[in-house]
Amino acid sequence: MATKAKIGVLGASGYTGSELVRLLLRHPRAEIALVTADRRAGQEMREVFPQFAPFDLPKLVSIEGLDWKNAGLDLIFCALPHATTQKVIKGIFAANPAAKVVDLSADFRLSDTAAYAKWYGHEHYAPELQKQAVYGLTEVYRREVKKAQLVANPGCYTSCAQLPLLPLIKAKAIDTDEIVIDAKSGMTGAGRSAKEAMLFSEVSEGFHAYGVGGHRHMAELDQEFSKAAGREVVVTFTPHLVPMNRGILSTIYVRGKRGRTPSDLHVILLKTYMKEPFVHVLPFGETPQTRHVRGSNMTMIGVANDRIPGRAIVVAALDNLVKGASGQAVQNMNLMLGYPETMGLEQVALFP
Amino acid sequence: MATKAKIGVLGASGYTGSELVRLLLRHPRAEIALVTADRRAGQEMREVFPQFAPFDLPKLVSIEGLDWKNAGLDLIFCALPHATTQKVIKGIFAANPAAKVVDLSADFRLSDTAAYAKWYGHEHYAPELQKQAVYGLTEVYRREVKKAQLVANPGCYTSCAQLPLLPLIKAKAIDTDEIVIDAKSGMTGAGRSAKEAMLFSEVSEGFHAYGVGGHRHMAELDQEFSKAAGREVVVTFTPHLVPMNRGILSTIYVRGKRGRTPSDLHVILLKTYMKEPFVHVLPFGETPQTRHVRGSNMTMIGVANDRIPGRAIVVAALDNLVKGASGQAVQNMNLMLGYPETMGLEQVALFP
Amino acid sequence: MATKAKIGVLGASGYTGSELVRLLLRHPRAEIALVTADRRAGQEMREVFPQFAPFDLPKLVSIEGLDWKNAGLDLIFCALPHATTQKVIKGIFAANPAAKVVDLSADFRLSDTAAYAKWYGHEHYAPELQKQAVYGLTEVYRREVKKAQLVANPGCYTSCAQLPLLPLIKAKAIDTDEIVIDAKSGMTGAGRSAKEAMLFSEVSEGFHAYGVGGHRHMAELDQEFSKAAGREVVVTFTPHLVPMNRGILSTIYVRGKRGRTPSDLHVILLKTYMKEPFVHVLPFGETPQTRHVRGSNMTMIGVANDRIPGRAIVVAALDNLVKGASGQAVQNMNLMLGYPETMGLEQVALFP
Amino acid sequence: MATKAKIGVLGASGYTGSELVRLLLRHPRAEIALVTADRRAGQEMREVFPQFAPFDLPKLVSIEGLDWKNAGLDLIFCALPHATTQKVIKGIFAANPAAKVVDLSADFRLSDTAAYAKWYGHEHYAPELQKQAVYGLTEVYRREVKKAQLVANPGCYTSCAQLPLLPLIKAKAIDTDEIVIDAKSGMTGAGRSAKEAMLFSEVSEGFHAYGVGGHRHMAELDQEFSKAAGREVVVTFTPHLVPMNRGILSTIYVRGKRGRTPSDLHVILLKTYMKEPFVHVLPFGETPQTRHVRGSNMTMIGVANDRIPGRAIVVAALDNLVKGASGQAVQNMNLMLGYPETMGLEQVALFP
Repeated sequence: MATKAKIGVLGASGYTGSELVRLLLRHPRAEIALVTADRRAGQEMREVFPQFAPFDLPKLVSIEGLDWKNAGLDLIFCALPHATTQKVIKGIFAANPAAKVVDLSADFRLSDTAAYAKWYGHEHYAPELQKQAVYGLTEVYRREVKKAQLVANPGCYTSCAQLPLLPLIKAKAIDTDEIVIDAKSGMTGAGRSAKEAMLFSEVSEGFHAYGVGGHRHMAELDQEFSKAAGREVVVTFTPHLVPMNRGILSTIYVRGKRGRTPSDLHVILLKTYMKEPFVHVLPFGETPQTRHVRGSNMTMIGVANDRIPGRAIVVAALDNLVKGASGQAVQNMNLMLGYPETMGLEQVALFP
Repeated sequence: MATKAKIGVLGASGYTGSELVRLLLRHPRAEIALVTADRRAGQEMREVFPQFAPFDLPKLVSIEGLDWKNAGLDLIFCALPHATTQKVIKGIFAANPAAKVVDLSADFRLSDTAAYAKWYGHEHYAPELQKQAVYGLTEVYRREVKKAQLVANPGCYTSCAQLPLLPLIKAKAIDTDEIVIDAKSGMTGAGRSAKEAMLFSEVSEGFHAYGVGGHRHMAELDQEFSKAAGREVVVTFTPHLVPMNRGILSTIYVRGKRGRTPSDLHVILLKTYMKEPFVHVLPFGETPQTRHVRGSNMTMIGVANDRIPGRAIVVAALDNLVKGASGQAVQNMNLMLGYPETMGLEQVALFP
Repeated sequence: MATKAKIGVLGASGYTGSELVRLLLRHPRAEIALVTADRRAGQEMREVFPQFAPFDLPKLVSIEGLDWKNAGLDLIFCALPHATTQKVIKGIFAANPAAKVVDLSADFRLSDTAAYAKWYGHEHYAPELQKQAVYGLTEVYRREVKKAQLVANPGCYTSCAQLPLLPLIKAKAIDTDEIVIDAKSGMTGAGRSAKEAMLFSEVSEGFHAYGVGGHRHMAELDQEFSKAAGREVVVTFTPHLVPMNRGILSTIYVRGKRGRTPSDLHVILLKTYMKEPFVHVLPFGETPQTRHVRGSNMTMIGVANDRIPGRAIVVAALDNLVKGASGQAVQNMNLMLGYPETMGLEQVALFP
Repeated sequence: MATKAKIGVLGASGYTGSELVRLLLRHPRAEIALVTADRRAGQEMREVFPQFAPFDLPKLVSIEGLDWKNAGLDLIFCALPHATTQKVIKGIFAANPAAKVVDLSADFRLSDTAAYAKWYGHEHYAPELQKQAVYGLTEVYRREVKKAQLVANPGCYTSCAQLPLLPLIKAKAIDTDEIVIDAKSGMTGAGRSAKEAMLFSEVSEGFHAYGVGGHRHMAELDQEFSKAAGREVVVTFTPHLVPMNRGILSTIYVRGKRGRTPSDLHVILLKTYMKEPFVHVLPFGETPQTRHVRGSNMTMIGVANDRIPGRAIVVAALDNLVKGASGQAVQNMNLMLGYPETMGLEQVALFP
């Protein structure tokens, strides 16, 4: 039997943390060796997430005082809140320059630390580390991820916009001045912190937009879209909250350039993703639903005609906790540790 | 005590029918004198909708064989399926030329019977009647509704797009070639018919677009927007289904024309609706949520800056069964019978 | 036009508080003159509950420093957290001995202050006031409520158990040693405080029992059931949380005494509630559903045969925020102010 | 690599059918060789369940005309509607006496064909086959299942009552005349047929009991409980529907016999299930939640004190589509084919 890599999960009491635990528990080459949660330190995982009661897992510990040099971890997932993360990861690499880290926060996603400072309102705490961070949308940066020590796992909203749009932008097939992304997310995207606005009674039977005109995720889109286009791209993006647990659906409005029809756009996506295990392009005219990717690492993309000639409607769906976070992170881990990319990520969607 | 008008509700076993009964039961000047439902004829309303068990209501009867001439009804609500409706209403007016009817179906909404034939795939069955039908978006056609005998109550999706957009189009404040309406509706919009796709287990934890690129509601939008603009307007419109019962939220992307900023658009809406009892414009930058209008006849509208200069995001919310259907219908009834417009429609939204 | 009573709502930022505001806004003889919320003092109601944006309401103030003597309030609703309430109400009566108060907390429900101390873990802070408090289950204590100055509004779970059981216990028709009450509540019963366990993502797709074997509501049941039976009655009671907003459903297992059949029990309930406006007994064998009372002040009760001879299953349903809290409170207000008991409480249930 | 068994799934367009496909797609020793669905014959699985779009699966065929003798199937799952099933399985064994079948319907669960006729209102269509059918609650009939050719997979409600109660009944630790089972199920338990009462808008925000006093599942409980007790046992059982997709929770009220305390009952369950991979007994006083078993084959059981001395409250939770149906069926398949019992069933629960 093959040896197992020893894995640490920092921030295991949140939803992306528990999702990492769910996936790693069944990963044939991973062993969960460390789980941290500062406020729940000393407790068992089963007290924080009772679904893990039947499994053997280490006790939760505090991140403080951990000896990163001698921890013997082959890879660390960092599922900590924004900003804290830069300091923690800086500490890890200071103690152990050979460490491998996949960070699920937004802290290392912007290569331009000035853009980071502008969007997040404070200086970057680890600008030197930022230089070696690889942006972890595997389908785009597969080669870089394989060699990376620090991977910045992409955001859930942005993954659900980049996977359908990047191939079209790269092919110069759409007008980049007129992209409208109307995105809808399940509630787990808001995390596990106890806020009034996230209570069941506030959310159930409710639907609404938020962060209208200025959501932070836009910085990440600006960066990747501009890079793909070779010029500055600024898109319109509105996130909404849906009364459901999991799933993001992006409805994207684009105009074909230089005579490209919606069918042409469909062909570009089909070709790009033909061999990708975690992106599935539907037949032309069909559009995906969040429930058909729930619990899986799959992204589904559809393209349809708008009735206005030359315009297309592109719809993408993924599970924000899997392909939008922890599944994507495990996909990156697999590459960083030399495992097959799909290992431990073959769950079929749970529907109904 | 003032006398009560005798009211008939055709199609009382569906959701818009039951919503009419809910509103009329507490309307001080209305008496429910007739309720029909062909497949449930002979049953009590309580067997079809147990929430009415504590109330006295007539037994459900079949529509067939009713003597419209001597029925003694002051006004008839028609909440029947599409197409059937044209024939039924034709029959009503043939028997009783003085009848007053508010039709909640799509059958009399398109003044151009050729457009009707194109979108619905068959000839209009009552083209003569169509000529006298008044489109019943009260805020726009108040004067016409007061004198009407046949009112075509607008659709729920289209109301939630017209109320925010019509004032902007009329003021020539936005570019009518670049309007994108991304609309989301609760499940009651799909009616009460037993379809696999509407089952709880199919819908819960799901979110999806449908009718992408070609929903029938577009015909109604084309008509009213073109009329308001004085030229042909064709918008992009995508409906989605949300796992909740009630509510429509439209996220609308527009570009200001001739230097109009989002704030300018906000002022136009604010002025238009200042005195309207059922349209409330939020402070600039705030956007509405479906749960805050649930069960009420209120529409809430918000305007915010897009980050792309010159572009605005307009968001509107209403309850598809009230302002989007039965409340709107009672509002029209009030005008047709000479009652105060808000009578019986003063319910405060039920949240949580 | 009749004059309106000036009403105060203490604790208007919680769910029972907002529900009082919803009902009072449409009550023909009530004017909301004061709304308090300590942490939200200085804000408008629309900032706390956006559904009230279209209405004129006083600004929220802090409870501290209010001059109860000169406030000019005809009646005060107290929707404050447990324990605080005893002190606040003591202060009100100290300043204004002629005050009228309906308290929605548990603070004055137990006439035995020793029982209070036992269940709540501290001495009663206003034992003198307790003596004059009337337990406000209107159907049972109508006469006392009419003359009361301080009414202790019953709990939601307990109302949904008392209304079906009290008539059976009083008639000595069931074995009081063998009552099992399996109760299920929507999430609003847990209030509006931001707790992890109440987050949408924790609750949706979840169902569970809590407080198994020892919920505080039992004290209230013990008191009223023992009083009705003329001997000590201790029931088995298990509360559960349902992923929905509103509604309590109690499934109650009883054994008929002295040959009473389930039909006999049904007849007792039917007779008891024949003329009650807010209790509706269904035909024998039918059982109620929470959705058919949602948003209304109605209680629905059904009785069916168990297949074990002599045993019956009694099911009751009410809206925890209306008949289980704020509607019940307004019903009491109506009696205390000499208004018709049903005034302002005639809303029909909102289904779907 | 080990060879794979060829598996047939009859009735693959329903929820238990799709759940079998979900599990078998990832089972290391199973190959889905046949999927049937009469009304969807000729379609791809992806048209019926889009979540299977990324996978290679055979096309759906009609059951009629299949050549069971030469189909080369190692095992057949039968997820067909009640009654049809007896005839289909009779046909299978007639053509191929060496066939192995796991039937997920109720058709072969009652060993007494007279009891079957009484509860189902018609004669048993395959009484000879009934004799060899093994009741497939694996934890109880493991030895028999291993040698069986026809396994009658237990019902979801009944599994969630038998697993907690059978050990207590066998140990003569509880009074079998006083068992009350209050059971709550998610909506997938009602299947995928398009019925009005199962529509999202009917179910959401609703909770109710059904089949009060006389649900068919009782026959199965009577059989197994009486067998375990060595005398006739008749329990009180009420099923309820919860607005969620998956999960059954049973709240069970029992009285200890001969001085057995709730702790004693807990010890019995703990010992019984100590080594079972799919039953987890929680620490005394803790009770399970449906969300912590969702998507997994796990059953969780808790025991707590009732406040009435001598009485205990036992709560059990499982996923009705997994341990309550398709997971249980695969568990039986594993034994029938000589595979490890847990193979392909190691999914961790999907929460949130």
